[in-house]
Amino acid sequence: MKTVIPFVSEVSGMERQVWRDALPEALDGIAEVKAFDDLSDAERNAAKIAIVANPDPEKVAALKNLVWVQSLWAGVERLVKELPEDGPLIVRLTDPQMAETMSEAVLAWTLYLHRSMPTYMAQQHAKLWLDHPLKTPQEVTVSVLGIGKLGQASALRLKANGFNVIGWSRTPKGIDGLKTYSGNDGLQDVLSQSDIAVLLMPLTDDTRGLFNETAFTNFKSGASLINFARGPIINSDALLQALNSGRLNHAVLDVFDEEPLPEGHPFWDHPQVTVLPHISAPTITSTASKIVAENIGRYLETGEIPDAVDRKQGY
Amino acid sequence: MKTVIPFVSEVSGMERQVWRDALPEALDGIAEVKAFDDLSDAERNAAKIAIVANPDPEKVAALKNLVWVQSLWAGVERLVKELPEDGPLIVRLTDPQMAETMSEAVLAWTLYLHRSMPTYMAQQHAKLWLDHPLKTPQEVTVSVLGIGKLGQASALRLKANGFNVIGWSRTPKGIDGLKTYSGNDGLQDVLSQSDIAVLLMPLTDDTRGLFNETAFTNFKSGASLINFARGPIINSDALLQALNSGRLNHAVLDVFDEEPLPEGHPFWDHPQVTVLPHISAPTITSTASKIVAENIGRYLETGEIPDAVDRKQGY
Repeated sequence: MKTVIPFVSEVSGMERQVWRDALPEALDGIAEVKAFDDLSDAERNAAKIAIVANPDPEKVAALKNLVWVQSLWAGVERLVKELPEDGPLIVRLTDPQMAETMSEAVLAWTLYLHRSMPTYMAQQHAKLWLDHPLKTPQEVTVSVLGIGKLGQASALRLKANGFNVIGWSRTPKGIDGLKTYSGNDGLQDVLSQSDIAVLLMPLTDDTRGLFNETAFTNFKSGASLINFARGPIINSDALLQALNSGRLNHAVLDVFDEEPLPEGHPFWDHPQVTVLPHISAPTITSTASKIVAENIGRYLETGEIPDAVDRKQGY
Repeated sequence: MKTVIPFVSEVSGMERQVWRDALPEALDGIAEVKAFDDLSDAERNAAKIAIVANPDPEKVAALKNLVWVQSLWAGVERLVKELPEDGPLIVRLTDPQMAETMSEAVLAWTLYLHRSMPTYMAQQHAKLWLDHPLKTPQEVTVSVLGIGKLGQASALRLKANGFNVIGWSRTPKGIDGLKTYSGNDGLQDVLSQSDIAVLLMPLTDDTRGLFNETAFTNFKSGASLINFARGPIINSDALLQALNSGRLNHAVLDVFDEEPLPEGHPFWDHPQVTVLPHISAPTITSTASKIVAENIGRYLETGEIPDAVDRKQGY
């Protein structure tokens, strides 16, 4: 009998359809993927693995014998919050293509800031012809905050394109060819020398609200910030204050406390804010489905569970 | 007696001041730089080299014994047009930093198009939260039209960042690791497969108006274009027609028939056009001055003239 893997997801529309096509195809010959609502009682009880994408926690809880769940996303803070601590292990999606896509986004929006694109686009709007001094990338210090897989790929990509790159993580990490800092003192050091700071750390109890009024006073004057991590890492009011006071030059924001960003939010029409609809590193269905199938196939054959989230660290 | 090198330039303001500081410093110990208007008759007659930046042709003609002139810019089509054919040899500025700067600009605005920045910025203006499908860079074909030093550096940079890159030049050129095309038939081939076409060729009699109505009908539907070469290579009316008909998706224009772009020009507020004020690869004074000093020092010592412009080809 073929193993049945529940797919528990509240995502809707085209995205749901894409996964409902891609996952069975990738898992063909390994296991059968079935939407939660279509499961028999026997199938619910037999399930040791589930694939989850924004799942209803009660549905996950109804799968009483789950050993682990495979997330379709890299960000799992919502799962960590909503699933009980003694619940199934949580496996985030670690798709090598995602590190490529994220590092491309980091480079793209770093160049956007480095080459003064917000200024030139505002000038076009005002029909103004005026050039601004350009630095070599070697003269520009970019810090990558959060140097896991996505952060490391981003730092290397920035270095390969000439920027002076430094890294920061909560706990000390040595990375070949990258000057790194750690802890709260390290963060002050890093922010005081960054022309562009790129946020790529996970959202945890330690990082929630980390970018508050105090953090912004540590920034080099005229620096810019890119948030490709999670909205609540930044205190929005403190950010607005830092932008309005001229301490910060520009913020590229892809993530927010509430998404979609509410209609009346001051970020929408702030000239120093670029609002993106959470598009820095979309999961690319084709490559991600293959990873999920490999993880599940390996477990069914050998019992090996992929690296799971450390619930204490929160990622 | 120290050799006197005339500096013949009609540029004004800050740019002139920057050069008038940097050139004597770089040439210190090699030769004395003197503005044309400050030269004695004897100095005019003795001058075998002049440094030129947008010079008055009559002033150049007044230096009767010139062997060669050193331009401070890479683009010399105006010099070629204005100086007599039997006049001094023309040496363009070939600063390795300029190839770096240009290839950075090519990458920056290719990523700008690839990551849908014009769309996301228009959406922010409309307070619209909507994501668009993303391709891997391997799925995106970028053509570099004109594969001299700047074009080659740009093609390599795009390749290093994952794009599928092809090259085109007027006459056949073999470049390691780059699929290249040439001539008119080759141009049709290249345009029909390009998602993004980057113009980097010199302005010559052959390339003036090359992008006319016919050329635009050869483009792949929905493609985009970046012009970092010279304005008159594109017929503006044909480009507007191609954008309005939907054949072309977007044009990033850094160069124009007339610069600054006149106030009433339709490019300024066309939603599918990004207007830049000729900033793709500004000469960086510090590195360029050193190159000029090396060229002049070598000539004074050995009589060797740097590679000069081929007047028949026009570049």
